[in-house]
Amino acid sequence: MKKIINSPKDFVNDMLRGIYLAHPDELTCVADELHVMVKKRLVPGKVGIATGGGSGHLPLFLGYIGNGMLDGCSIGEVFQSSSAQQMLAVTKSVDSGQGVLYILGNYGGDNLNFKLSGEMADVETSINVTSVIVKDDVATDNPENRRGVAGIFFVYKCAGAAAAEMMNLNEVTRIAQKAADNVRTMGIALSPCTIPRVGHPSFEIGEDEMEIGTGIHGEPGVRRGQLTTASEIVDEMVYPILKDLQLPENTEVAVLVNGLGSTPLEEQYLAYGHVHNILSARGLKIFHAYVGEFATSMEMAGISISIFKLDEELKRLLAKPADTPFFRQSSLLSISSI
Amino acid sequence: MKKIINSPKDFVNDMLRGIYLAHPDELTCVADELHVMVKKRLVPGKVGIATGGGSGHLPLFLGYIGNGMLDGCSIGEVFQSSSAQQMLAVTKSVDSGQGVLYILGNYGGDNLNFKLSGEMADVETSINVTSVIVKDDVATDNPENRRGVAGIFFVYKCAGAAAAEMMNLNEVTRIAQKAADNVRTMGIALSPCTIPRVGHPSFEIGEDEMEIGTGIHGEPGVRRGQLTTASEIVDEMVYPILKDLQLPENTEVAVLVNGLGSTPLEEQYLAYGHVHNILSARGLKIFHAYVGEFATSMEMAGISISIFKLDEELKRLLAKPADTPFFRQSSLLSISSI
Repeated sequence: MKKIINSPKDFVNDMLRGIYLAHPDELTCVADELHVMVKKRLVPGKVGIATGGGSGHLPLFLGYIGNGMLDGCSIGEVFQSSSAQQMLAVTKSVDSGQGVLYILGNYGGDNLNFKLSGEMADVETSINVTSVIVKDDVATDNPENRRGVAGIFFVYKCAGAAAAEMMNLNEVTRIAQKAADNVRTMGIALSPCTIPRVGHPSFEIGEDEMEIGTGIHGEPGVRRGQLTTASEIVDEMVYPILKDLQLPENTEVAVLVNGLGSTPLEEQYLAYGHVHNILSARGLKIFHAYVGEFATSMEMAGISISIFKLDEELKRLLAKPADTPFFRQSSLLSISSI
Repeated sequence: MKKIINSPKDFVNDMLRGIYLAHPDELTCVADELHVMVKKRLVPGKVGIATGGGSGHLPLFLGYIGNGMLDGCSIGEVFQSSSAQQMLAVTKSVDSGQGVLYILGNYGGDNLNFKLSGEMADVETSINVTSVIVKDDVATDNPENRRGVAGIFFVYKCAGAAAAEMMNLNEVTRIAQKAADNVRTMGIALSPCTIPRVGHPSFEIGEDEMEIGTGIHGEPGVRRGQLTTASEIVDEMVYPILKDLQLPENTEVAVLVNGLGSTPLEEQYLAYGHVHNILSARGLKIFHAYVGEFATSMEMAGISISIFKLDEELKRLLAKPADTPFFRQSSLLSISSI
């Protein structure tokens, strides 16, 4: 295990401390607990948006706390849910009387603890809580069982912009659910990752192999295939998404090519070139492309591709500016219209 | 060699095509040549800033073309200089009558070709060209031989902000030279990288070893050491920089913890925590910290640390907003002063 760490047991705390120290103007933590991080200057009267999940996915989850996106995040150990108590602490901190929306990926521990946190908020406080569970990974057949992966970024972005426009909790929840319904993701991995406390790679794989349909927890994919050309690898991801989304010609979409950790940005852009080919050939219109690391599994090599179906409302919200420690965007519409 | 590519020979072209297609509102290329990329909407009457270098370092170099930073970039094959003709094409494109500043890292091929390009610009055109060569890597003893590594980011940022304020060529060049004089960098690597056309890793290294004083071309460091704790690794980088910079107490600095490619953001932040400890204990004031991938060697694992000594002028320019495909920043001073 080659990692720049002090010890496996201190990994998450040391990492959170580094983030906290590096962003003193943007982030603060609740009751000195680094696992409960919230936006430094909350906007009074705005619906709060909270998320949470395990460590090992940076910039997910906590990196999207900031103007135009999220208000707070609870963080667990590597690939483990945070506790319901931590989620409740975030909920209380980010509520300003208009209620709180939870946006979470579809995992057992997160589902359970966010549900419990919402119930405690209801009993202990008068905070209205709603939840949207993101299930964007098309690798599994049954849509209800699908994992939440990198596509959650689009849900954060649109819900965050809606809340920033001072929409009410019902409206922000409706937008988040629509965004979650409109995004699909598929991933492949070329190498595993190593959880520090475990100390060995999450799976073994040959020099000429890849895992197809992998998530963001270092797990193998749904099947193993030959490592082929970039174009064929991209085909393996984009066609299942297009089959699932059934987009009519001229539909506007946003695309996210996401690096899973150690795959160089060069390869991510190279892959985007072929995504562009396929979507253009289908007569789809690419409103905006995001390429980079948005949801990772530490040092896993691989990429995921997300396609986000836009309507006028989602496009307008996606295009709004955002400013967080890890994601910043000027207005996309003003750039296009210059 | 596990890479998401179509073929080693097409790697750079395919990658540049992906970048070009992903950023249609921000970048364009000169005479349909993907190796010569410039800002889409140049600001009339502004001093042009051009850079260039080999591929394999994303977001360096081309990723910093945009508002408040660079105007154009010529791109070579992996770890190889672009040609003087390509540099000249960029020079002609980004000049708007106020002259062009070249900012380059200190490498033989780049030095030679930028010099030639500047001479051709002088003979063929009436464009005034100045150059600043960045030599921030403290791994080598002789300051004149030092390589340019991730610290070039600070030179781009300050010179770019100066040009955006419509300073003249002499002033922008003075700022760039002062920034270059004030930044130092040191890097370590845990694993090599593989140049696609070469097909095998650039060096071999054991599970318990690291390379100390490595650059950004996949080369080994100036010496090999034991892989120790994150804190000891950071000590190996920060103390040589501090020895070289000789900063009096209360000096304001900016810090860059840069991932070399496959090192997870978690480990970069964890390292930042200890940088913060050391600088605080020395009585230095951290004005701003940047953590992430700013200058890479494809899938090399490792980090570099840069420390940038600020005065009031450099601080003001560093704090200015910037908006490029890979780096976006709101004004740092307005955030601090809210």
